[in-house]
Amino acid sequence: MDRNLVTQKIISAKVKNKMTWCKIAESIGQSKEWTTAAMLGQMTLTARQAAVAQELFDLTDEETLWLQIVPYKGSLPTPTDPLIYRWYEIVSVYGSTIKELIHEEFGDGIMSAIDFKMDIQRQADPNGDRVNVMLSGKFLPYKTY
Amino acid sequence: MDRNLVTQKIISAKVKNKMTWCKIAESIGQSKEWTTAAMLGQMTLTARQAAVAQELFDLTDEETLWLQIVPYKGSLPTPTDPLIYRWYEIVSVYGSTIKELIHEEFGDGIMSAIDFKMDIQRQADPNGDRVNVMLSGKFLPYKTY
Amino acid sequence: MDRNLVTQKIISAKVKNKMTWCKIAESIGQSKEWTTAAMLGQMTLTARQAAVAQELFDLTDEETLWLQIVPYKGSLPTPTDPLIYRWYEIVSVYGSTIKELIHEEFGDGIMSAIDFKMDIQRQADPNGDRVNVMLSGKFLPYKTY
Amino acid sequence: MDRNLVTQKIISAKVKNKMTWCKIAESIGQSKEWTTAAMLGQMTLTARQAAVAQELFDLTDEETLWLQIVPYKGSLPTPTDPLIYRWYEIVSVYGSTIKELIHEEFGDGIMSAIDFKMDIQRQADPNGDRVNVMLSGKFLPYKTY
Amino acid sequence: MDRNLVTQKIISAKVKNKMTWCKIAESIGQSKEWTTAAMLGQMTLTARQAAVAQELFDLTDEETLWLQIVPYKGSLPTPTDPLIYRWYEIVSVYGSTIKELIHEEFGDGIMSAIDFKMDIQRQADPNGDRVNVMLSGKFLPYKTY
Amino acid sequence: MDRNLVTQKIISAKVKNKMTWCKIAESIGQSKEWTTAAMLGQMTLTARQAAVAQELFDLTDEETLWLQIVPYKGSLPTPTDPLIYRWYEIVSVYGSTIKELIHEEFGDGIMSAIDFKMDIQRQADPNGDRVNVMLSGKFLPYKTY
Amino acid sequence: MDRNLVTQKIISAKVKNKMTWCKIAESIGQSKEWTTAAMLGQMTLTARQAAVAQELFDLTDEETLWLQIVPYKGSLPTPTDPLIYRWYEIVSVYGSTIKELIHEEFGDGIMSAIDFKMDIQRQADPNGDRVNVMLSGKFLPYKTY
Amino acid sequence: MDRNLVTQKIISAKVKNKMTWCKIAESIGQSKEWTTAAMLGQMTLTARQAAVAQELFDLTDEETLWLQIVPYKGSLPTPTDPLIYRWYEIVSVYGSTIKELIHEEFGDGIMSAIDFKMDIQRQADPNGDRVNVMLSGKFLPYKTY
Amino acid sequence: MDRNLVTQKIISAKVKNKMTWCKIAESIGQSKEWTTAAMLGQMTLTARQAAVAQELFDLTDEETLWLQIVPYKGSLPTPTDPLIYRWYEIVSVYGSTIKELIHEEFGDGIMSAIDFKMDIQRQADPNGDRVNVMLSGKFLPYKTY
Amino acid sequence: MDRNLVTQKIISAKVKNKMTWCKIAESIGQSKEWTTAAMLGQMTLTARQAAVAQELFDLTDEETLWLQIVPYKGSLPTPTDPLIYRWYEIVSVYGSTIKELIHEEFGDGIMSAIDFKMDIQRQADPNGDRVNVMLSGKFLPYKTY
Repeated sequence: MDRNLVTQKIISAKVKNKMTWCKIAESIGQSKEWTTAAMLGQMTLTARQAAVAQELFDLTDEETLWLQIVPYKGSLPTPTDPLIYRWYEIVSVYGSTIKELIHEEFGDGIMSAIDFKMDIQRQADPNGDRVNVMLSGKFLPYKTY
Repeated sequence: MDRNLVTQKIISAKVKNKMTWCKIAESIGQSKEWTTAAMLGQMTLTARQAAVAQELFDLTDEETLWLQIVPYKGSLPTPTDPLIYRWYEIVSVYGSTIKELIHEEFGDGIMSAIDFKMDIQRQADPNGDRVNVMLSGKFLPYKTY
Repeated sequence: MDRNLVTQKIISAKVKNKMTWCKIAESIGQSKEWTTAAMLGQMTLTARQAAVAQELFDLTDEETLWLQIVPYKGSLPTPTDPLIYRWYEIVSVYGSTIKELIHEEFGDGIMSAIDFKMDIQRQADPNGDRVNVMLSGKFLPYKTY
Repeated sequence: MDRNLVTQKIISAKVKNKMTWCKIAESIGQSKEWTTAAMLGQMTLTARQAAVAQELFDLTDEETLWLQIVPYKGSLPTPTDPLIYRWYEIVSVYGSTIKELIHEEFGDGIMSAIDFKMDIQRQADPNGDRVNVMLSGKFLPYKTY
Repeated sequence: MDRNLVTQKIISAKVKNKMTWCKIAESIGQSKEWTTAAMLGQMTLTARQAAVAQELFDLTDEETLWLQIVPYKGSLPTPTDPLIYRWYEIVSVYGSTIKELIHEEFGDGIMSAIDFKMDIQRQADPNGDRVNVMLSGKFLPYKTY
Repeated sequence: MDRNLVTQKIISAKVKNKMTWCKIAESIGQSKEWTTAAMLGQMTLTARQAAVAQELFDLTDEETLWLQIVPYKGSLPTPTDPLIYRWYEIVSVYGSTIKELIHEEFGDGIMSAIDFKMDIQRQADPNGDRVNVMLSGKFLPYKTY
Repeated sequence: MDRNLVTQKIISAKVKNKMTWCKIAESIGQSKEWTTAAMLGQMTLTARQAAVAQELFDLTDEETLWLQIVPYKGSLPTPTDPLIYRWYEIVSVYGSTIKELIHEEFGDGIMSAIDFKMDIQRQADPNGDRVNVMLSGKFLPYKTY
Repeated sequence: MDRNLVTQKIISAKVKNKMTWCKIAESIGQSKEWTTAAMLGQMTLTARQAAVAQELFDLTDEETLWLQIVPYKGSLPTPTDPLIYRWYEIVSVYGSTIKELIHEEFGDGIMSAIDFKMDIQRQADPNGDRVNVMLSGKFLPYKTY
Repeated sequence: MDRNLVTQKIISAKVKNKMTWCKIAESIGQSKEWTTAAMLGQMTLTARQAAVAQELFDLTDEETLWLQIVPYKGSLPTPTDPLIYRWYEIVSVYGSTIKELIHEEFGDGIMSAIDFKMDIQRQADPNGDRVNVMLSGKFLPYKTY
Repeated sequence: MDRNLVTQKIISAKVKNKMTWCKIAESIGQSKEWTTAAMLGQMTLTARQAAVAQELFDLTDEETLWLQIVPYKGSLPTPTDPLIYRWYEIVSVYGSTIKELIHEEFGDGIMSAIDFKMDIQRQADPNGDRVNVMLSGKFLPYKTY
């Protein structure tokens, strides 16, 4: 048994029971972004959160324990998926722009991907609705020593 | 001569003359995000915008023409750069979450990286200031035929 | 269970029952191109289309649900297959030509692979029949902001 | 000297003199698709065609000879370019569909990328104009022996 | 079930029953080269050929149907195998020579790998017997349009 | 200076002076296959052969010395070239067949790519002329010890 | 001009003038670890530090400016170098151990490579002196939101 | 059966029984760093250490034997994991610095990854606790012969 | 069934029965180097050798037949294993040296990896025992034709 | 200036002056194996050795200094070269054998590639002379801590 198997069981149960991530997030008591990432095997749950997941997805006690173990994170099922690829394209086309503007504003350092949060919203638009994604990460300066 | 050489000349001139992207964007008359991407060789300039760039960076007429030719876009100078890598990590860790949540809200389709805009802001925070990046892309649904 | 397993079951049933994609498309009520892509796990079916597929391929209720979930798209079983490689070769040899001519006609932007359709026809020819493939994608201009 | 250098000189001259591929194709006396591919170093010119190119782009005699030598073909300047990537995505998403439908119609074999032609047209559309690309390749059957 | 599984069953049966490709080819009624490629999952069999294979290898009806479906071709089990690597080395060392000499004789075009046949013979030699491989492919000229 | 530069000079001189590999091979006194490979930087020339090359291509004394130094062999200018790719495809589709048939005839061992020769011929054919390539390599058995 | 050229000039000057990193660090007024990284193009210098470097390495004013621009970081000249490879091996062999022990002590999060310092010391040892490297990075916990 | 399966069983048992690496190390009688690496399949255990592991994790006799066989070492489950990636980043950004400083102190040679030990400690810090990792490897000089 | 499965069974049996390669080689009647390579799936056994292996490892008749079939050779389980990596490092650091010295002594050609043998010995040394590996391959000259 | 340029100058001078590595090694006063590796940029020379090289190859003072700087080692000019590839093949086919036999004799550890020497000899043989290469590396045991 490993976390991967628990993730697959959760996804299967969600399809079978026609659940939504928004409803699942409400039960877990966190944002839909963090909750989805956690259910997809990227975040560590507290005992209380894991207990909610156990009930929602009918997990065994051992599976529930695995949700509380820090997972190996990252790596996507299909890097060729068009929706996901667009994000690599954004980094490829705008990556140097992002670097230049953050350094111009903050100096040498990075935008944290750990002390980080994300918010995805639909914006109605007469020319076609838009996906708005807000990424917020703490600026971490390089130290001199 | 190609666009790459013009980009290098622009970057060199910016360092030498201690210019900022914000000021350059004001002269060009567009956002700092679009302007920086354009100056770094990712966007096509109008004749008027190119004329401003010509003066700012002391470009030749031929170099100015190249700014108005659609460039080969994408590909980063150093994928190992820590600031840029954090963005690949975000896609690696959160990519499946983004896919799930956009599909839950909009159905099958993608968030456009073409009909797209980006806004980068500093957010003051007593625990350390944050980099807030808003990405906005039109939702494009897959068509049935 | 995941979409992949449903795709394999569909392909197996098609071979066993000697069905053709053209007939399957007629039952589904869409073009042979879209229907084949959908049956091969690249498109999302409506409840009605999935019900037709359920009957055609003798799927379980859970398998039928998976046809209505947006799949992870793309990635080919064998990139070494000669028929498929010829398409990579076309992009390799003609890619810069396609880029130049679309930009000459439309300016900066792309041909959409989402608002897209494809039509494959046999053209009789005394020197050997030809495969004619028409690809049609909406032009999406880069926006200035 | 090699063909690459001649291609770069042609591209540079085209930008400097604000020529279009359509006009160049008229002078060469071939389609805009074949002519652009040829000028970008993918096709071999006849002595007569090379002579036209020599005049158009002010080439030396040695450069003109190189246009008549069969070039090393393929490989793109930037595989990350969004317009070109969409074509790889089409092959990734629709490749197995194309394979299935060609085999269903013709049996085992391939669509030639050599006995091949391409035609790119703009189609006016109230929802946004479309790029229509017609690819036509002779079907080549596998032989039994 | 897929073609791969049928190939594995054929190879297993051949080892178990100590059959040779030459004898198998005689039963199928084609050359040893085409027959071996077909049995290894690279070619499509006719109904009659498949029926012979069914008997030779004790295949089920469904397995026999899969032999008549066009397979995904290519890709080798071990590119590191010394015998197979020598062929990559031949292309690496002599590839540009082959290109130059075919173009010198025929002009721009390729040697077909589809309208193609191969013949492998042992040649007795006092310094050690030789493997002689004759590859024959139709020349396909690039068309101008 | 290295062998690469000599190769480039030879290719350039051949284009400029409209020489053919067949004629060059006659002057060198070897087959057209070996000679072309040698001129393209894959083989080592004797002092006498190098002297002929010096005169043919107007090489300096130092360049002529480099032709007599064993070169770093292999690696192709463009693996994407359609003519050369067909050869990789032949190995991909027929590689396991070649392995099986050589082992069936000779036992465990390889076909040498060193004690090797190649002969390329045009075969007239009413359905289109063919390229016939004969590869001949000594069989080298694995030794037990 | 770019940072890379300045780095090369600094390395060249150091060899020519037989300087040591320890002495250079003393002049710059930082640790030998940070100073070496900075001189090798990985860190951003203050105006004062850059002025010291200008004198030490006889840099032009423009080169001195480049030292104060945030560089593209990372990527090694030779990943095959035995000393550097040992570090990749340490991560490959001990990476999962490091992950397990940090999570056991701190919970989910990472050891920062930005708020980070390094100290390299020689430890005398009768069995052969040892290289002791102390890496110290702030623990950054994943946030729930 | 192989070492991998034993490692998976150990990890599973540890999660199920809520054990810690520190406690396991105490039972084994070695440091927590070496013990964790050993349990994760990177080190060879003595008969006595394996007997302790057998009892701790309820292993069979055959599984216990595998712990005493030298394993194939290295290669990480997810190179995309953020905690592990930071270590690759440290090597990418500081690798040349480490090389320069070791050579300056010791001359030509390497820091051994075999005669090596590691110690991981938490350092309390009001600005956020730190992970301190001490790596110690014997210096091995290149020999002249 | 394939050779791989037989190899795994042999390795498993060897661990379970605490056999050594030296003893196995004595039973097979060949050197320990050839025998180990053969048992690890790299060499073809004679009927007599296979019969010995059958008894040693308790193989079925079908498994014993597979030992007599020429295997797909090469490719390592973990290229990251430190012991194996050192060999790649030797080729990376000394490869050009080996090439130069063999050509200086023998002229153009290679050292055969087929007509090849290997001998591994322990050499006692007060500074630490040494591994001595003797590789012996027939020199094969390139032929002119 | 860097070590690479010095290496190229040395190779060029050796060809021009028809020197041999054996003679060069005699002047340097080390084995032909170490000397060749050093001249090809893989080893660090002492001041005395560098002075000999300066005279042999007519180097400048700055070039002579670079020979005394520890170089970035490894990485080959052409991994496709047949002579060099045979060595990768030996590691691919015999790597697991070497690992097994060293561990059987010595236990867990590696054969050093640093405390290492190599000796290449011609062995006369009526069936064709052989290349004998003796590799000798100190065994380094993994330590428990």
